[in-house]
Order: sequence, then structure tokens, then C-alpha cells
Amino acid sequence: MTTATPATNLPRRRLLAGSASALAAAGLAGMHGGALAQSAAAPAATPAGKPLPGYASWKNADAVTVHSATTIETKRSAFGTSVITPTDQLYVRNNLPTPPESIVADRDAWKVQVEGVKQPRALSVAELKTLGLDTITMVLQCSGNGRGFFPSKPSGTAWTVGAAGCVVWSGVPVRDVVAALGGVADGMPYMTGTGGEVLPEGIDPKTVVVERSVPVAAMQDALLAWEMNGEPIPLAHGGPLRLIVPGFTGVNNIKYIKRLAFTPQESEARIMAHGYRISPPGVKADPSQPSVQEMDVKSWINSPLPEDGTQAAGLVQINGVAFGGMHAVKGVEVSTDGGKTWQPARLIGPDMGKYAWRQFVLSTRLPKGTHTLASRATNTNGATQPQERLENRSGYNNNSWADHAVTVTVA
Amino acid sequence: MTTATPATNLPRRRLLAGSASALAAAGLAGMHGGALAQSAAAPAATPAGKPLPGYASWKNADAVTVHSATTIETKRSAFGTSVITPTDQLYVRNNLPTPPESIVADRDAWKVQVEGVKQPRALSVAELKTLGLDTITMVLQCSGNGRGFFPSKPSGTAWTVGAAGCVVWSGVPVRDVVAALGGVADGMPYMTGTGGEVLPEGIDPKTVVVERSVPVAAMQDALLAWEMNGEPIPLAHGGPLRLIVPGFTGVNNIKYIKRLAFTPQESEARIMAHGYRISPPGVKADPSQPSVQEMDVKSWINSPLPEDGTQAAGLVQINGVAFGGMHAVKGVEVSTDGGKTWQPARLIGPDMGKYAWRQFVLSTRLPKGTHTLASRATNTNGATQPQERLENRSGYNNNSWADHAVTVTVA
Repeated sequence: MTTATPATNLPRRRLLAGSASALAAAGLAGMHGGALAQSAAAPAATPAGKPLPGYASWKNADAVTVHSATTIETKRSAFGTSVITPTDQLYVRNNLPTPPESIVADRDAWKVQVEGVKQPRALSVAELKTLGLDTITMVLQCSGNGRGFFPSKPSGTAWTVGAAGCVVWSGVPVRDVVAALGGVADGMPYMTGTGGEVLPEGIDPKTVVVERSVPVAAMQDALLAWEMNGEPIPLAHGGPLRLIVPGFTGVNNIKYIKRLAFTPQESEARIMAHGYRISPPGVKADPSQPSVQEMDVKSWINSPLPEDGTQAAGLVQINGVAFGGMHAVKGVEVSTDGGKTWQPARLIGPDMGKYAWRQFVLSTRLPKGTHTLASRATNTNGATQPQERLENRSGYNNNSWADHAVTVTVA
Repeated sequence: MTTATPATNLPRRRLLAGSASALAAAGLAGMHGGALAQSAAAPAATPAGKPLPGYASWKNADAVTVHSATTIETKRSAFGTSVITPTDQLYVRNNLPTPPESIVADRDAWKVQVEGVKQPRALSVAELKTLGLDTITMVLQCSGNGRGFFPSKPSGTAWTVGAAGCVVWSGVPVRDVVAALGGVADGMPYMTGTGGEVLPEGIDPKTVVVERSVPVAAMQDALLAWEMNGEPIPLAHGGPLRLIVPGFTGVNNIKYIKRLAFTPQESEARIMAHGYRISPPGVKADPSQPSVQEMDVKSWINSPLPEDGTQAAGLVQINGVAFGGMHAVKGVEVSTDGGKTWQPARLIGPDMGKYAWRQFVLSTRLPKGTHTLASRATNTNGATQPQERLENRSGYNNNSWADHAVTVTVA
């Protein structure tokens, strides 16, 4: 995926004055792509094929590519066709080092401070479990998924398609928690979540804390979740408690959440104010630029792939996944000629709700030769996956169908 | 779950004349509950808590109870609330020893012989993958799930609720395979699958082979599946290829399928002719009795449970799973007074189709005291889960809501 060599594995921009040594002391240099990508250390672009880090040692090594200790990508060939991404194949992208295992030793004791409600208080997971229960399936996707297709080679992990998965979450609806605490206080247009990572000493917490704000309307479908794919959320994925904001990119789904606040303003944390902004190429990130939040309509083909080798001529089941961002998938078209002509694909398998991905298949015959296969999804809001990516400095939100096309050889 | 001691861990009935020594030589004595339960070796009723057998060493030991080397049950407390049962928690019930790992070394090379069609032939998994693709979610449930609640203590594993799970399968629709082979031959009312287990020498194959027939109409929703929950089907669950017959009990979903035949008659294998029959108490099994095939409407509560200990008084989310057999779940009622009164529960989470289970929840307040919690599902065909089990010799198809009730203490 990435062709970087160790020689290029260096921060490309200067570290923030005053924070460089503290970051280095905390072992954070090069590990904080999202929050610091624009102005501090670029994420380590490491060669693929590294060993799995300890906190994720249980991942299926054959199904993933380890980019770095905090960035692990699902191989395109490993997605399979069963809608849900198995936990041991799901990507990992952590903005800070993973907290110690001790925080999942007594999961029910973990507490989240709820603020900006009429009756603010701390609630343990055990208490949350009494307040309500729901389950939601959603695409979890890193904001930078598809960055590897940007010719501009933005800083950050060069993900192709595998910084995404379709995951089942269970927990208490945030709206039930809010109702139990008297409702949202007046004048709070944002829902702000703060992660429970251990922050380094000697550095302004705002420069490193994982804290993100989303519009308060996102509360309606949000969960405080303790379970993922039928098991307690692994530490690597944010256990014991994670804020789930369906339809929003991964970073907005705060791991180890320790504070959920309804706020009059967006967080001033660097990861919010400067990180994850859609900055024009060559322009520094700032809070006036759009934040990376809601996902766009997107699809890609998972089979056949070039790595499958030469295909036999004849019948083939071209298949992949499609999701609609904030709206359900309406349909998917597939092209076998690089986008000159398109045929409607068939949606198959279970429909797990508007935030989940759907599988699609086109049963067709491929003659001998070379074929460029592409897919193009449309959602129920009328948005269709574009041919070209939106160029931006950090390589976010790539949903270009051309970038995701694959070329296969039939003999 | 089972209270049997090693001293009672003996066949309770005489082995079939002529096959006893062969079974013993093949290490099969006591391992072939379904096929031989009525007339030969009773399954080994072993104490719970044994170590995981090698072929299933990757199971989550904390989430399962190992009854024997071929029977592993999901703990009721481990089901969680995420619809899909994680593979490492899913029950195992094998009728014969697991085939060698070598059969999954080259999955695409595995062949199934298709017969009783206009153009019979063998097809490799690689060939099957070109013919069609679909994904189905279904409850996989052992015919004997709930046997542990029969006061008559029938032979066989004393499963409570955990010989069941909700699983996603991907593969080729059987109807697509049949269409590619010219259609079903005339006069074939049955679809018969034969498992690829290695059979012992010196014994009539019909007495041990796993071969089951279902009505040919079941073909419409059936798959030849190579993937389960997003990964190639593990050997323990029937990989590289398994026949999936949605709505039918586990034994009808033939593992390591080597032959799929459309046949004029039901298989004469013992596991079909005498095994898995609904025999009246005290009456030997015979082919005139109903075969255990289609599942019935059923539900149970997974939380709270007695093993959670004393509950705090106040709000509680009583939740569990419900499935409708051959029809979707229409609704679930929950009782907190042992079935005297019922309240409608809320169905939550994704609806993965009529063969999947649904989660239900009743948000209620429990005062101090002892409460017997029960659930009762109704399907879209109008069938409601009965209070009492249907008594039968081998303890099949238990869907009694009274048997599945739990008693919890609130202080």
C-alpha cells in the first residue's frame, strides 16, 4: 500500500515549538496524525508488513496490513461478503497510544461525566446499562481512508480501502441518557466527547487530547456503547465505553470516553480546531474550514482483484460494498470498461439500516483481456459517488469511483 | 448444566450388534448422539468445564461450556446484544470426529458432487464461486437445544439455550447451481446432503454417515456456503463448504458437504431414518415419526440472569433474542411474574431477515423481591411460543417459554 522506506519515515514538517520535546518524551512523535498532521509531526508512514502491536496482537495477521503501531488496515481481499467486518480483521487507527489494559479490568466501573444537561453527573457503565438499550450497525471509516490514492501524497497513513468496516454496536442511546438527566441545557448546539487516553505531562492538553464536537442533532442516533460485534468492546477499539455517532468518520466516535458534554461552542482542542479540516491544497488548516464529520456516499469492489491473479474467462460475480453516508444506499452501478458504460448491480444480503454498508453483486461474463472494474453508488438523498476526489491538503473523504477502480486480467 | 458424573458416563443402551466393536475401534463410541442415540451409544454426558478440543482451541473459553470433545455450548450470559453471534462464541455439535485440517488447506479445490439434476457433475468451490452469490443470516440451532430442561433427562447433551447462534453465511444459492446444471431431474421431492467426514472401516456406512434429506422446496433459500461471519468457514463449523438450509435445525446443514443430491426418497442413513425423530416418550425412533427439520418460534431472556447476582432495585432493561422458525418474528411479550401477566417488549437493532433472530427489550422497574422473568414470541404465521414443551423421547425442539424463564433476585 505504502511505498515509503525507512529513510522517508521522518516528520515532514517541523514540530510545534515547545511541544516537540514533550511529544518525544511521551513517545508520541509521529503517532498523532489527526491532531497534529497539519502543523506538527506527520504520521509515521511505515512499510507494510510490520508485526502486530501488543494491544492488537489478537488481530488476524493474514487479513491486515500493519502500517505502524497505531495504524492497521484491513486488506481489500479480506473483506469477504458477510456484511459485518469481523473484529479480528477490523482496522485500527489510534490518535494516541492505547491506554493500559487496566481500564478494561472492571468495565462496569468506568465512568463518563455528562455535562451540559439539566442535571449533570458522572455515570458508570453499570448505571448506563439500566437506562436504555439499542443496537446499531454502521460503517466505521477513518477520515483518511482512500488517502493512498491521492497523487499529492498527503501526510498521514496511505490507506486504500481498508480503514473501514461495518460494525455492530450495542449500548444506551445518548438521548435516553440525556432524558434521564433532565434534557440538554439551553444554548448547546454541540455534542462534545473527550477521550480517556493518558496525556503526557508538560504539554498543553489541548494540543493532544482527543476531543471532538459534532452538531447536537447527531445525538438522536448516537450511542454510548459497551459492546461491538457481540463482545465487550476491545481496548483497541475504545472499550470499555465508546461514543458512537453513526454516519460520522471514525475520529468523531470517541474511544474510552470520559466526558460527554453539550457545549455552546466546538471544542478548542487542536484535533478539532486544526485537525481533520478540509483544507485546500497548500493551505494550512484552520477552524474556518469544514470539519471532517459526515461521511459521503461511497463504494468499492472487493472481488475480483488484481492480486487474485489471472481470471478464467466466463461468468464472474463482481462484488463489493456500498454505503450512503447519512442516507441509505439506493443503488449501485458497476462498469467493466473503466466507467464508459454502467450496469445496475444487485444489492444482496441483509439490510442492516441506513448507516450500514450493503453488498452488491453484478453477475456478468468477462471475455479474455484486461478490464477496469468500477462501482458507483447512489444514496436515497440523490447523491452519487463522483468520478474525481475532492483535492484537499490532508487527503480526507476520498470517495472517487475512479480512484477505487481495479484492473483485472482475464485469460 | 449436566450433573452426570464419570460413573454415569456410559452408553445407556446396547450398541448395535456388529457395530459396537467397530465404533470403539474408530473412537466413535459415545460421539454419535444424533444418529445412534436411540439404538446405540448414548452421547457422552460429560461434566461441564472441560478444556477446549484442539479443532476448537480458538474458541473463547470464557464464553462457552465444553460438554465433550464434540459438544460446546455458548453461555447464556455471553450472547450479548449485537444480533450476530461471534464465531469464537458459537456452539459446536459434531456428529462425527472433525475431519483433518488438510481439507481446508486448499478450500477452492474442495468438490461437491451434484446429482439428481439434468446435468449431474462435480463442482469445485472455485467453480461454485462463479455461479452466484448471496448472503443470508439465520439462526443455527441444534435440534436438542433446550434438552437440559426436560425432566425426563433424555440421552444426549443437556443443552440449555446455548446450542444456538445467529450467523451470517455467504455462498452460492443452491437454485443457481441447479439452474446451471439444467434444473432438478423429474420426480425428486427431496434434497439430500452428504457430509465429507472420514468414516470408519468395517462398519456399514449408513449407520454413521451424516446424510440428511429435506423437502426440495427448501432449496429456494438454501446456500452452498464457504464463508461464515465474514471469514472462510472454520473447519469446526463445516468448512470448506457447508449446506445451509435456513430455518432447519443444525443437523440439516451438512458440514464438509461432498454430495448434494435431489432424490426420490429420503436418505436411508440411520441419522435420517432413526436419528432426529420426534418419538413419543418410551417409544423407539422410526421413519414414520416426524423428522426434526423446521424450527419453531422461540425466545429467551439473556439479561438479567440469576448468575448476575442480586440486582439493584429500579430500572432494568430485560432483553433477549427471539426467532420465528420459518417465519419472521412478529412480536415478543415479557412477563415479570412467571407468566401471569405479559407486557409487549420492543424489538431493537437490525432486522436481518426472517431466518435471523431479533433482539427484544423491556424497559421496566423491578421492586425488591424475587421475580420470574419469561419471554414469549409470536411469528408472522400466528404461531406463539407455548408454555409447555412437547414431550419426546430424545428431547428435541424445546421451545417452552416456562422452561426458558429465569428467576432473579432484586434487593
